[in-house]
Amino acid sequence: MERIKCTIHYDGTWFSGYQIQPNGRTVQEELETALTKIHKGRVVKVVASGRTDAGVHAKGQVIHFDSDLHIQKENWKKALNTLLPDDILIDEVSIMNIPFHARFDVKEKEYRYFVLNTKAQDVFRRHFAYHVPYDLDIASMQQACEFVKGKHDFTSFCASHSGVKGDKVRTIYAASCEKEQGLITITFKGNGFLYNMVRILVGTLLEVGEGERKPSDLPSIIQAANRETAGKTAPPQGLFLWKVSYD
Amino acid sequence: MERIKCTIHYDGTWFSGYQIQPNGRTVQEELETALTKIHKGRVVKVVASGRTDAGVHAKGQVIHFDSDLHIQKENWKKALNTLLPDDILIDEVSIMNIPFHARFDVKEKEYRYFVLNTKAQDVFRRHFAYHVPYDLDIASMQQACEFVKGKHDFTSFCASHSGVKGDKVRTIYAASCEKEQGLITITFKGNGFLYNMVRILVGTLLEVGEGERKPSDLPSIIQAANRETAGKTAPPQGLFLWKVSYD
Repeated sequence: MERIKCTIHYDGTWFSGYQIQPNGRTVQEELETALTKIHKGRVVKVVASGRTDAGVHAKGQVIHFDSDLHIQKENWKKALNTLLPDDILIDEVSIMNIPFHARFDVKEKEYRYFVLNTKAQDVFRRHFAYHVPYDLDIASMQQACEFVKGKHDFTSFCASHSGVKGDKVRTIYAASCEKEQGLITITFKGNGFLYNMVRILVGTLLEVGEGERKPSDLPSIIQAANRETAGKTAPPQGLFLWKVSYD
Repeated sequence: MERIKCTIHYDGTWFSGYQIQPNGRTVQEELETALTKIHKGRVVKVVASGRTDAGVHAKGQVIHFDSDLHIQKENWKKALNTLLPDDILIDEVSIMNIPFHARFDVKEKEYRYFVLNTKAQDVFRRHFAYHVPYDLDIASMQQACEFVKGKHDFTSFCASHSGVKGDKVRTIYAASCEKEQGLITITFKGNGFLYNMVRILVGTLLEVGEGERKPSDLPSIIQAANRETAGKTAPPQGLFLWKVSYD
């Protein structure tokens, strides 16, 4: 058996999320259907770095699966891209000759959230950015980002019925907010993220940008360890799982 | 009665084209449904600068309609954008105090066609550019554009069952082809365009770019006045009605 690692892109708009479920189209099911075809009906299971929600996109999701077919990496790419629907793309394939697990071996994840901060909506970006038509104070949002960095208990930024097991302490290595030509990019890098964590962080930053909260409110929001102290959950379409790094 | 002019954007992906038809969702029907609601059930007809095909987008389509409601232009914009689906956007409204007809008074139209010329497809642009993975000779395509400019009978570049009445002589004021960061933009400006004309011009330019035809073949293709001498019809998703100009 060989373990195959793939970096994949997907447009999350028309998916009920990454993870397989009884009702709704999922990325995992599309991947497993394609792989099962290649294996002539033998079921092949796929493991991802983590799930993404309905409407959330990926530019650098990482998955693995095992196969006894001994196909070369460029041919894996061609075979899969031929069978997959046009909203999933296999970007890179590696045949691993060292132990590798797409979920357990994650060292760092990067998420980017895009906010279109212009008066008018852009119909061509409506699925790929969250449109906020009013003025936002980017400098304050950037200041608030500084308080997010570091090792914290992020209970306040985790959906209340998340079912997350274990502690909610995560380390954020980078957090930033930049605006260029009407498009705000909010970037987070960390060793792990709780359920809805990026979207709640963004929702809170947007309330700082609107002047409803101060950047210096962040430490007490974190300290409260209570979901109700943080801001709204920002909508999914602005969110991209951008990069997953391994040792 | 007041005549209202609107500049509109739409993502053509999920439309069966601009023009109303018995089966399929159209831009015109969505506009007329919204306007009829605003007029409390009285049917309002919309006139556009011209139709666009299924999958073709608009950044600057122009329409007009007549109303006795005496609504201010910013309120027209708000009311319509509230009622319209999220793949149509009213960008600008003018209340005309001079005679104006969205179709008959067109002076110039600009179309842009986008070709994503990179090895890998981009899932996020698949509805907004035509992906061509092999190398294209942009300089040759630009040379071919030079032969398109001017006043010609464009019969060779008109879909054979087009039903276009009258002569097929049109004047092209500008034709160009540029590549930046993997994205080729092909621009045409002219006093009018025949059915499928831009897509057949692009299909022919792409065959020049692939080396299947020479730039200097263009004059004889035009001269033949025969659809079969020109190239394939490029797919709709790369095409945008970019701007419509009036006196």
